[in-house]
Amino acid sequence: MPDKKNTEERISKSIRDLKPYSVPEIQCRIRLDGNESPYNLLNTISDEIYESVSRIELNRYPDSTTRELREKISSQTGVPTGGILLGNGSDELIQMIIECYTGKSGCILMPKPTFSMYRISGMVLGKEVSEVDLDESFDLDTEAIKEVISEKDPDLFFFATPNNPTSNRFSRGRIVEIIESTSGIVVLDEAYFDYQGDTLLPLIETYENVVVLRTMSKIGFASLRLGIMLCKECIIHQVNKARLPYNINSLSLVLASLVYEKYDIVQEKIELVKQERERLSIALAGINGISVYPSDANFLLLDVGDSQRVFDELVKRDILVRKLHGTQRLENCLRITVGTPNENDELIEALSDISLS
Amino acid sequence: MPDKKNTEERISKSIRDLKPYSVPEIQCRIRLDGNESPYNLLNTISDEIYESVSRIELNRYPDSTTRELREKISSQTGVPTGGILLGNGSDELIQMIIECYTGKSGCILMPKPTFSMYRISGMVLGKEVSEVDLDESFDLDTEAIKEVISEKDPDLFFFATPNNPTSNRFSRGRIVEIIESTSGIVVLDEAYFDYQGDTLLPLIETYENVVVLRTMSKIGFASLRLGIMLCKECIIHQVNKARLPYNINSLSLVLASLVYEKYDIVQEKIELVKQERERLSIALAGINGISVYPSDANFLLLDVGDSQRVFDELVKRDILVRKLHGTQRLENCLRITVGTPNENDELIEALSDISLS
Repeated sequence: MPDKKNTEERISKSIRDLKPYSVPEIQCRIRLDGNESPYNLLNTISDEIYESVSRIELNRYPDSTTRELREKISSQTGVPTGGILLGNGSDELIQMIIECYTGKSGCILMPKPTFSMYRISGMVLGKEVSEVDLDESFDLDTEAIKEVISEKDPDLFFFATPNNPTSNRFSRGRIVEIIESTSGIVVLDEAYFDYQGDTLLPLIETYENVVVLRTMSKIGFASLRLGIMLCKECIIHQVNKARLPYNINSLSLVLASLVYEKYDIVQEKIELVKQERERLSIALAGINGISVYPSDANFLLLDVGDSQRVFDELVKRDILVRKLHGTQRLENCLRITVGTPNENDELIEALSDISLS
Repeated sequence: MPDKKNTEERISKSIRDLKPYSVPEIQCRIRLDGNESPYNLLNTISDEIYESVSRIELNRYPDSTTRELREKISSQTGVPTGGILLGNGSDELIQMIIECYTGKSGCILMPKPTFSMYRISGMVLGKEVSEVDLDESFDLDTEAIKEVISEKDPDLFFFATPNNPTSNRFSRGRIVEIIESTSGIVVLDEAYFDYQGDTLLPLIETYENVVVLRTMSKIGFASLRLGIMLCKECIIHQVNKARLPYNINSLSLVLASLVYEKYDIVQEKIELVKQERERLSIALAGINGISVYPSDANFLLLDVGDSQRVFDELVKRDILVRKLHGTQRLENCLRITVGTPNENDELIEALSDISLS
């Protein structure tokens, strides 16, 4: 029997003290915690789905080039296929970009608070992560960011706009100011762009150092894991080197292609969610003790006072929302995904009830 | 108009001179190049597939814990669910293991020739890659490997057994000798194990530093991208920190679960391929100018002399095989996946024809 091996000394420094990303496993009938679309379009397009699936060769590797899907995305966005790269969710694209574009300073800048995977992937890959607080109105603090540029010259910037969990867009002028202040790569994560419509995509034509990310996760297809990277071809050429050759499975490929053929149905549901966001926002703002931040996304940031109590009370009523951690400014806040009209009605009733109790 | 940005200086050193992994895009009617199973089981289990797909909530994120599928794998392998981690193909698991277990020397050892993704992922992640030539009979050269252990103390070892592209297993005794000579993590990639049946899986109980990889890609489900990591829970705990939270999409999850329920059909096809391997092997060995290496996998390594000529002639006959590069020893070799009986007949006829011409 050999000695117990000391495998611990082999653990990478960046990994050793890290905690794995985890979402608490609470089962509720109404799930307003994940910023998903509340609409499952499976039944609406089931015939087409089965027809598409029936043509898959299950025994064969997926098309490594993902050409067909990139052509559909190209038609919709106007970006040439050579400027499009697909990831197993935007998560994978974020990871690939960090692997490929941290060659000078090794530093990554992101605002705080924002989507946590920028920081987590940066840390897993052993990069220096610099978090800059958003200003009073949750916009980018350009002065503070420019100071970090002078000091650390970050290779990479991650700006989610609309931002998660604050739900607002950053001002275009400030983003452009930052893009022009650096030769580092500025990643504009437009995961929620469909819910406000305004896009920064044209910036990829003006600036070589701009990358735009999109995703199918917020518009009804989180199950597929499909992230989209849009930028100049010279950036794609580098990031593609870090791509695992068969990173998108065949089922997601054919179903995502189908979604682009049926985009009017997707758009219809986006409009429904936008209408409900306005209704929900007004209704919740009318409840005693709740303030609602203005939202450009498919979720609302609420200040509710004792957020742990309200969270627990909602769970008792079978409604799951997201309790926010990590920044003191959001200590009293909950993040609530816009649901179906019925789900939103139940939420409004529950929060009115909790507020009074 | 801003100055042209010098984004090139931001490219990570490990990426700059790398070439992207690419498989030449040649379309042939008979595809014996990818080491896939020739059998598409979609029609055999289509009712169950549609039933499974119909239960997917397309709008929801996949189950991040992958619990249901890990339970099925646990039942089949006897490994507790806590000792199982799933990847978007073994490719992703290889990448995650490299990220997590290169904390001491930063060096990765692998034999040459072997599956190329060990080297590529090591290089993408900026690690030192040490390739040790296989011995005369394509077995591990333990003396040479022990020398590298003394000199560089690799953190990680990748041994594919059966090995791709040499098609043989490494001897168990040599593998154990290496495992006992190091506290580095020894990854035994059993991608092709189903085609010979003998497994090294019990070693994960004896040795803390052993990881076994399996995959669904070689047994009929390459489309799904499902890699399986089996080892002690303490290793999983670390590697799970580098896992993207939703790395397995919902469709692959439910279809892979279904495959485990229908495993007798899968096993039947594995047996068919094994029978065909023997028949094909004997038939090809009888052709003038061809030698066939003994195979424990679902493919054959052939020495054919002028391999470029034979490759081109096969393509002319609408048959695609794999031309091997990278090592002088395989200069005259082709790698040929075992196909259906009809495909194999056509291959035999084509090679007889080419050999005579």
